[in-house]
Amino acid sequence: MFRELISIEKAKQIILENIPSKPVKTEKIPIYEAHRRVLAEDVVAPFDVPSFNRSIVDGYAVRAEDTFGAEEEKPIKLRLVGKVNVGEAPRIMVNSMEAVEIATGAAVPEGANAIVMVEYTSKEENSVLIYRPVVKGENIMKAGDDIKKGEKILKKGEVLGPRKIGVLAALGYTEVKVYSQPKIAIISTGPEIVDPGKPLAPGKVYDINSYTLSAAVCELGAIPINMGIVPDEEKEIEKAIKTALENADAVITSGGVSVGQKDLIPKVLAKLGKPGILFCGISIKPGKPTTFAVIDGKPIFSLPGQPTSSLFVFFMLVRPALQRMAGTREESLPTVEAYAGEKMFPARGRKTFIMVDLKRDNSGRLIAYPVPKGLSGAITTLARAAGYIEIPENRQFVESGEKVTVYLFGD
Amino acid sequence: MFRELISIEKAKQIILENIPSKPVKTEKIPIYEAHRRVLAEDVVAPFDVPSFNRSIVDGYAVRAEDTFGAEEEKPIKLRLVGKVNVGEAPRIMVNSMEAVEIATGAAVPEGANAIVMVEYTSKEENSVLIYRPVVKGENIMKAGDDIKKGEKILKKGEVLGPRKIGVLAALGYTEVKVYSQPKIAIISTGPEIVDPGKPLAPGKVYDINSYTLSAAVCELGAIPINMGIVPDEEKEIEKAIKTALENADAVITSGGVSVGQKDLIPKVLAKLGKPGILFCGISIKPGKPTTFAVIDGKPIFSLPGQPTSSLFVFFMLVRPALQRMAGTREESLPTVEAYAGEKMFPARGRKTFIMVDLKRDNSGRLIAYPVPKGLSGAITTLARAAGYIEIPENRQFVESGEKVTVYLFGD
Repeated sequence: MFRELISIEKAKQIILENIPSKPVKTEKIPIYEAHRRVLAEDVVAPFDVPSFNRSIVDGYAVRAEDTFGAEEEKPIKLRLVGKVNVGEAPRIMVNSMEAVEIATGAAVPEGANAIVMVEYTSKEENSVLIYRPVVKGENIMKAGDDIKKGEKILKKGEVLGPRKIGVLAALGYTEVKVYSQPKIAIISTGPEIVDPGKPLAPGKVYDINSYTLSAAVCELGAIPINMGIVPDEEKEIEKAIKTALENADAVITSGGVSVGQKDLIPKVLAKLGKPGILFCGISIKPGKPTTFAVIDGKPIFSLPGQPTSSLFVFFMLVRPALQRMAGTREESLPTVEAYAGEKMFPARGRKTFIMVDLKRDNSGRLIAYPVPKGLSGAITTLARAAGYIEIPENRQFVESGEKVTVYLFGD
Repeated sequence: MFRELISIEKAKQIILENIPSKPVKTEKIPIYEAHRRVLAEDVVAPFDVPSFNRSIVDGYAVRAEDTFGAEEEKPIKLRLVGKVNVGEAPRIMVNSMEAVEIATGAAVPEGANAIVMVEYTSKEENSVLIYRPVVKGENIMKAGDDIKKGEKILKKGEVLGPRKIGVLAALGYTEVKVYSQPKIAIISTGPEIVDPGKPLAPGKVYDINSYTLSAAVCELGAIPINMGIVPDEEKEIEKAIKTALENADAVITSGGVSVGQKDLIPKVLAKLGKPGILFCGISIKPGKPTTFAVIDGKPIFSLPGQPTSSLFVFFMLVRPALQRMAGTREESLPTVEAYAGEKMFPARGRKTFIMVDLKRDNSGRLIAYPVPKGLSGAITTLARAAGYIEIPENRQFVESGEKVTVYLFGD
């Protein structure tokens, strides 16, 4: 079964067809904790913003018609009947030939329909001289001018940043309904891996994937449940995946899928539940042994054990799935155009992704160099690569100096 | 004092000259909590990675010289003396005309200096036929090939993402020294503002700045201490700022700096300590009343009360300061080129920043439209603007259709 390798495009399609099309769970959280969370409801304004007619300058609230004809040389004198400070409910009425002193942001008193800026006035004891006319509505923000009551101002699915959280506060929200962050269990397997901090016996390496994958999960707004290293035995792995399925919304394993490592994970996945394994092997390099299963509605991604390969497959296939589960936009990695720093060859018959570093040459052009040359097991590949380029399986090579698109990893 | 408005460039210079040039405090944290944190130490490899010679293929560990002359038609037969699995310390020695079966990632046994890929061999009972020669070192990653003991692999100041955390794990780190996240106290003032959730009396608006600024502080990797609304009285504000200075590394206030709002904050800042106020007013729109002080080594940013203005000034002036205090790169906002959707005018004599939304026209060009037209107090300006454009004080206007650079806010 599943002897055939499938294409990366087909793999992505199968994954996206088999995960929920949007997050299932929602929760209410305080708006001060809502940064980076995803709205699970449309936000409709419960009242006008501002809720009152508001002066947008310091000056005098007047009836516009009283100012008509005012000039520098022939100011019009209005009777000063009071003052409205910011935050006060105005208790004065502006009648014909009257003015009320008003501050920026204060509520415009009844009767007034315009504000004369303080610059065009001069105050006397009980009156104010107006040197320029205003038109009706001038310097007033009307109730509802900013947000109308009933207006849909934020939409389900939007990611909340500082500005949108500000809109929620403006509307008096203290809590907001957001999608629950998906919990992602992370399991490392492989007879060679040891927890960092423990002694490193000959032939052993430290577990890297638990940490890279946890951080990558965080970055997408999901919550990693790091289950650490599971011993390389069928029963242990089965128990761990069962526990993971009970506690998480999706599972990522790494290791245990390549020929050298006994194919343990596919063996376990094949018997855990329906529909089970949906593909087992992709025609790409790195990432060939990647396996995908769904058990009782929960996706399980089995990635290669080699750290660069597993993180790379995470970026290619797990990331879009988790973005969907988190309710965020499915954004592909940012790209930049560069020139190949040397001739690069694809693996025979597989779409090949080459990790590259970017440097500028003397003329300022961005050059993409493969890193590191020929060290497929290298952790430094991860640390040193700025991103990757793609070579289709039908290309013989990428020529040195050829224009290439580099997909960027970020930090 | 400080009657003169200064330029935005001068304001930025004064701020950066008066905050510590890098974070002062560091702390040790577990690597699984290190995502997005900033390294406070250089990381030097304590041992070779890998720590042993490692096979990068499945196959047979041999002495290369024994395979010379091997051909498809004339294979060379080697005696099979054992097997090394992944994660095992090899206990076998490879002597002349001997081979040891080896898995990808396993340690190369002593005596062997190359690995023949399994594809070019056929196994017999106690021997293996080799159909292709290998050269010395072929298919072996040598100890230290990835990271050499003593090599400086990560540098102080780097932001830790999934890949760099992976490097720490590879080197056996369980904890890492990072810069402490600066704590930023946030104080809202203004007689018109009310906590969201409370009833909104006439003339009042909800406090927005506490929430926008807290989220903006989070976004930069600093920790907001939201002190809420402080009553608009000199004593209360003085008390709040003193408390803030005791508990935080920097203070941001909003409101209380414009003419209409009694100049309370500058009055308090002027008497709190040395050196005190360093500028009070910038020749920009929005953001003119922005004030900056340093009290006993801690910066205090006093922003306007209007939410769009205060968040805008945060992006322009507070952000670079907090990035430096957090130890992250001082990155300016990303930009995009667009065309002005209409004629736009600067405020008289001040460098003017106009919030714009971006839309594509029929021919696919990005067009920048000012939002919202003439509503300077609008919270929707914040929510709807994709970014801002800059009009120098000596420009009469930006013509409709003119090419403009848009600085992008992000979410």
